Amino acid sequence: MATSPLWASRLKTRGLVLDVIRSARATSRVELAAATGLTGATISEVVRELIADGLVVEVGRGAPTGGKPRTLVQLNPQARYSVGVQLERNTCVIVVVDLTGRQVARTSFQGTAMMPPERALPLVASQVEALLATAAVDRGKVLGVGLVGYGPQDRRVGTLLTPQPTEEWLGYPVAPRLAESLGLPVLLDNDAAAAAIGEYWLGAVAPRSTYGCIYMATGIGGGVVVAGEVYRGSSSNSVEIGHISIDVNGEECPCGNVGCLENYAGPSALVRQAMAMPELAQRLALAPTDDGFLTEFARIAAAANAGDPEARDLVERSARHLGYAAVTMSTLFDVDTIVLAGPSFAVAGSIYQAVIQQEVDRRTFARRVHPVRVVPSVNGSDAAAIGGAVLVLQSELTLAHPQDGVRPLLVGTGESP
Amino acid sequence: MATSPLWASRLKTRGLVLDVIRSARATSRVELAAATGLTGATISEVVRELIADGLVVEVGRGAPTGGKPRTLVQLNPQARYSVGVQLERNTCVIVVVDLTGRQVARTSFQGTAMMPPERALPLVASQVEALLATAAVDRGKVLGVGLVGYGPQDRRVGTLLTPQPTEEWLGYPVAPRLAESLGLPVLLDNDAAAAAIGEYWLGAVAPRSTYGCIYMATGIGGGVVVAGEVYRGSSSNSVEIGHISIDVNGEECPCGNVGCLENYAGPSALVRQAMAMPELAQRLALAPTDDGFLTEFARIAAAANAGDPEARDLVERSARHLGYAAVTMSTLFDVDTIVLAGPSFAVAGSIYQAVIQQEVDRRTFARRVHPVRVVPSVNGSDAAAIGGAVLVLQSELTLAHPQDGVRPLLVGTGESP
Repeated sequence: MATSPLWASRLKTRGLVLDVIRSARATSRVELAAATGLTGATISEVVRELIADGLVVEVGRGAPTGGKPRTLVQLNPQARYSVGVQLERNTCVIVVVDLTGRQVARTSFQGTAMMPPERALPLVASQVEALLATAAVDRGKVLGVGLVGYGPQDRRVGTLLTPQPTEEWLGYPVAPRLAESLGLPVLLDNDAAAAAIGEYWLGAVAPRSTYGCIYMATGIGGGVVVAGEVYRGSSSNSVEIGHISIDVNGEECPCGNVGCLENYAGPSALVRQAMAMPELAQRLALAPTDDGFLTEFARIAAAANAGDPEARDLVERSARHLGYAAVTMSTLFDVDTIVLAGPSFAVAGSIYQAVIQQEVDRRTFARRVHPVRVVPSVNGSDAAAIGGAVLVLQSELTLAHPQDGVRPLLVGTGESP
Repeated sequence: MATSPLWASRLKTRGLVLDVIRSARATSRVELAAATGLTGATISEVVRELIADGLVVEVGRGAPTGGKPRTLVQLNPQARYSVGVQLERNTCVIVVVDLTGRQVARTSFQGTAMMPPERALPLVASQVEALLATAAVDRGKVLGVGLVGYGPQDRRVGTLLTPQPTEEWLGYPVAPRLAESLGLPVLLDNDAAAAAIGEYWLGAVAPRSTYGCIYMATGIGGGVVVAGEVYRGSSSNSVEIGHISIDVNGEECPCGNVGCLENYAGPSALVRQAMAMPELAQRLALAPTDDGFLTEFARIAAAANAGDPEARDLVERSARHLGYAAVTMSTLFDVDTIVLAGPSFAVAGSIYQAVIQQEVDRRTFARRVHPVRVVPSVNGSDAAAIGGAVLVLQSELTLAHPQDGVRPLLVGTGESP
């Protein structure tokens, strides 16, 4: 793609204006000029274009300020849609969101990722089609699909670089194949990075904030957002917090590292620890299967919430280990907020939040300089799928860095609308 | 400061062109247009301005390519200068660099940081004056001073937020006071961040690389550079790698964290470990004082180099612990290179490099995606001071983000030239 800076600069201006309108919900041209630093003339021109494209609509008048009443503009939620698909080990979650990122439809089903990708992806495609049909969303208004999962990925070609859950997924072109099946552009990204950016879009994050996200589903991942953009690094495989070592004397992890956080604090570790406590295991009727440990984990978390002292000890220990990793995140990335997202924080989230906050307050190196807040995600269990859909909106509408090779690319046959 | 995007955009264009000329050493207007994506007309105008300001000079013709021979342009090294001051616990290093970052003068002396700042800073100022005089540098061409040190800082007001080495430094306005003494603008920054950016300016780093730096002097710090800019985070107190935990069961560090890297792998830890081995301590005649452990550490490192098995074991263990932290840096920041900088890598650098490379190769999460090289800094022991001077050049000449509150600011009474 040609990368004329002039063209990029026009796109960037448009993206900036759209993003300010989005985050303000409703705003006037005068406020837009103030917020972006652009001239009134430029704002008028860009807004006129956005209205012509149907992305923005005028909506009445702002509160009188003495002068001429100001016409407000806001995003037209029904102008565009995007789809988020989260492929977890056990579950596949699909959401459809409108231009504002608001969820308009959702479905989830079991077992996809354990199938070989040639079978799984057509199934996912048919579920996407069904969901779009149910929600009565015009296909022509769908910008694309954000497919998110865990583990190392090659974002540019849309392949997974992990043999998990099965060898057949390693190197498989998941994004191009799903794009083919659907006739829609697809971008591949990391689930935790998606969860992180979803918070920027839908949560209460300051525009220039640097914040982190710890995402816990089957495993543990992370994302960092700097001024509204995901921190990428050299290959967009960053913030893999589940595989940082918290114990130099710990056991070797299949990933090659020793003492990985995930093996101390993740759901499967907790179930393993609980199974080693016969009374607790019996009391909670734990009977984990290889794929089904999330159910058992939820049972432990619920018991902890209900005051079972052994279950509570386990969850608090897990939270303390996450707390150490949160301190490392905070000391290295200098974040002002850490968001806890994903289904495995759903049940005992308040215990996790309290303990992690405590560790961060006590141990972060620069805690004299500013506090670090630990907060639950506004998108909860579906944070990754919603974030995947948001990445598509952001990629298509508000960012313009065509020279940036590591930004996830929408791959696909169809032109986006 | 007003932040008109138009003004910022002009400055940014100018900064971009300067940076490309700097990194190419000598280049033609046609090559500049190709490298920046700007039009020939814009390049001609910007280069004309830069020549008029004396920053850039024409230097003969490029290799004939068939057509009209191309006039080359390069930075005029003598057009501007900057000063780097590193305040370490034991030593103060001062360097003067020219516009290309090349060192033109250097001095170092002992003990400053152990004095109260009211006495230390005038001493530093007089040494800066003396060095500029010795090097016969025109004061009017000095852009400013980059003052670098360790520990949490408030960059905006130029104060240290650590009571180390003595309580009197905590909250003391070091940058404004040094600026007053010298009549030159002063920016305050982290020593390891400075060392990291120095590598971009003077080393062999690809322009869009994301790389990390581990800096070891008395303590251990870190920096990450993304596409030529220091990763800042919310308050510019980032990548404090010496104070991440590598052992959840480790001892409490005075910083509040447990099992901090520095207490396992830093010079004072090694000397402590060596003192617990009576034969080694005697063989190397170790007699550490509280401030002087770097001499003892250098003796251990030299013995390791010379093949003393016990000394080598100690250094390799330190390197392995640094290796774990390097893996964390790599897994979180997704860097393509890790640079080892600072005086404490000077003696046994090759042992450190080999062991850290080994750990990174074995344990980095995304090692399937791309390799991570571990390399020594081109700026060696003086990397922080040189980097401090480079931060001033970069801040004044090639960056233009006036809206970015966390960028270190030059504070001072004088206008820079």
